Amino acid sequence: MQSRSDQNAEYYIEGILQKDRIILSKAITLVESTRKEDEALASAVVQACLQQQKFSRRIAVSGAPGAGKSTFLNAFGKQLSQSGNSLAILAIDPSSTISKGSILGDKTRMDAIVNEENVFIRPTASSNSLGGVARNTRESILLCEAFGFDYIFVETVGVGQSETMVRNMTDLFLLLLLPNAGDELQGIKRGIMEMADIILINKSDKENSQAARTAAAQVRHALHLFAASEKDWITRVLNISSLEGSGLDAVQQEIDAYFLRLQHSGYLEHQRAQQQLQWMEDSIANFLSEKMNRNAQWMAMKKEMEEKIRRREIDPNEAARILAEHLFSSGN
Amino acid sequence: MQSRSDQNAEYYIEGILQKDRIILSKAITLVESTRKEDEALASAVVQACLQQQKFSRRIAVSGAPGAGKSTFLNAFGKQLSQSGNSLAILAIDPSSTISKGSILGDKTRMDAIVNEENVFIRPTASSNSLGGVARNTRESILLCEAFGFDYIFVETVGVGQSETMVRNMTDLFLLLLLPNAGDELQGIKRGIMEMADIILINKSDKENSQAARTAAAQVRHALHLFAASEKDWITRVLNISSLEGSGLDAVQQEIDAYFLRLQHSGYLEHQRAQQQLQWMEDSIANFLSEKMNRNAQWMAMKKEMEEKIRRREIDPNEAARILAEHLFSSGN
Repeated sequence: MQSRSDQNAEYYIEGILQKDRIILSKAITLVESTRKEDEALASAVVQACLQQQKFSRRIAVSGAPGAGKSTFLNAFGKQLSQSGNSLAILAIDPSSTISKGSILGDKTRMDAIVNEENVFIRPTASSNSLGGVARNTRESILLCEAFGFDYIFVETVGVGQSETMVRNMTDLFLLLLLPNAGDELQGIKRGIMEMADIILINKSDKENSQAARTAAAQVRHALHLFAASEKDWITRVLNISSLEGSGLDAVQQEIDAYFLRLQHSGYLEHQRAQQQLQWMEDSIANFLSEKMNRNAQWMAMKKEMEEKIRRREIDPNEAARILAEHLFSSGN
Repeated sequence: MQSRSDQNAEYYIEGILQKDRIILSKAITLVESTRKEDEALASAVVQACLQQQKFSRRIAVSGAPGAGKSTFLNAFGKQLSQSGNSLAILAIDPSSTISKGSILGDKTRMDAIVNEENVFIRPTASSNSLGGVARNTRESILLCEAFGFDYIFVETVGVGQSETMVRNMTDLFLLLLLPNAGDELQGIKRGIMEMADIILINKSDKENSQAARTAAAQVRHALHLFAASEKDWITRVLNISSLEGSGLDAVQQEIDAYFLRLQHSGYLEHQRAQQQLQWMEDSIANFLSEKMNRNAQWMAMKKEMEEKIRRREIDPNEAARILAEHLFSSGN
């Protein structure tokens, strides 16, 4: 069996540009690798993909467990695919080291699209830190965009910090809720509803259409209480049924309207540029934090400071000053 | 005239412990000082105050400009003061370098309490960065707590990041809204409503009591859609009129109930400990960021990286790696 390092960057880059899905998959494995010796190669591949001038619609799909994200992607993905679009579905779940991967674990929910020619499905390795998952996902998006997919969906579970992270690497944030909104939202972390550009009340099946419409009205009302976002887009709330296939045309129309509007206003380009710069800031912070975590002596000192703070022996600000100085002085 | 440095730490500490409001005021000026030579003295005073085992109820008061924060504090402060409580009001407004200090600028709104014996009012110097304002405010709180106030109110304007900062140094977050909630909330930044422990619909005067009750119901309904916070407290929504003095007893009762509950459950203590540790983390990040900002060569390099990112010549992650390495290697 060939090892990854036997291949050069050309192999991966050419493969991706020639729409070879097996090589795309290998390339994602490469960027996910935590092996030191894969780093330079992965970086070269990412770098090359970055320079491609292709454009995919990057869409985050979030919702509490059970909201029907996979079922929705199955139905909506099928519709997109049948009308000639290609799509990638990346699933991330930073919590799955604990839950053993509920997300996309059951690919049977995607039975309508899993074997489609122009559909690529890929769960992100999740044995990593949140920072690691973020980097992997963002780089996987770059690879998929260079490949030339029309749509890239990033599926994430609506219970943690992963939403903010995913929002910062996508163009549109799609949130799935269940018709029993009041109860359902208990599973959604504070602040996530406000990130949504389009909210889908899923499982708005014929038999509970009344409850579903009420839920949509309630959510719309709640959204009224929030300030408009700077992107000049009012969050849409739609009733859909992934099972019955109803409402999916409206989803498509709203997604089209969103991209049309934001491309026209220049906001989309602006948002992507901002995301890139923010990404650099976050990465610097990540690198520094990794550096600190690897410094055992410094970490012991920090632990000690925390104890002193608990015993009111030192002010947190003073403790931080000492720790910050030590970080640079000890020749780390 | 005596300069600050002519006084030693004892002078400030003794003054604060003996409830000398003029010395408290001087001590706050000291901790707000950005002069290098005041640093050690300020640190010693803060340190001593930290070790006092006194307890003040630390309450954040937020709301959009015009929501009536000062008028509320005037009326509520008077009620507290008349029933034998002492209180400090700290006002922060990081934006006031631009707006020239709308907050507390007009002390006439506090005419009922500004000359009360047991009321201390102090705007925080705001020519600083947000990080600087945060440190000043937090240290001012420590000084006021050592002084022995029953209540410390931190007034902040509900339009920026200052809310998160203030929440992280107080026990209870109080948000003022106007009866025309839908429109009013336009001025409130996303996410702030979810921080609130108690929401006051201010200006619920007799003449618009119907609209005020409707607004309260709407806000209560919107709150239902959010997950309960881990502190086991359901956000209260109250109608008050600072002008007519109505509803203020209920505010007092809810504040009492809040502290009773959170002290009993141990959450208050837990929250303060968490705030201290978080404070250290934030301060470390601040010190590192100051360090970077002062490093002209590094900043130039960063600027260059940003340009390269815009031109797609480098991946943000790669740029960050180079910048992070450079930070430690160049003997800063």
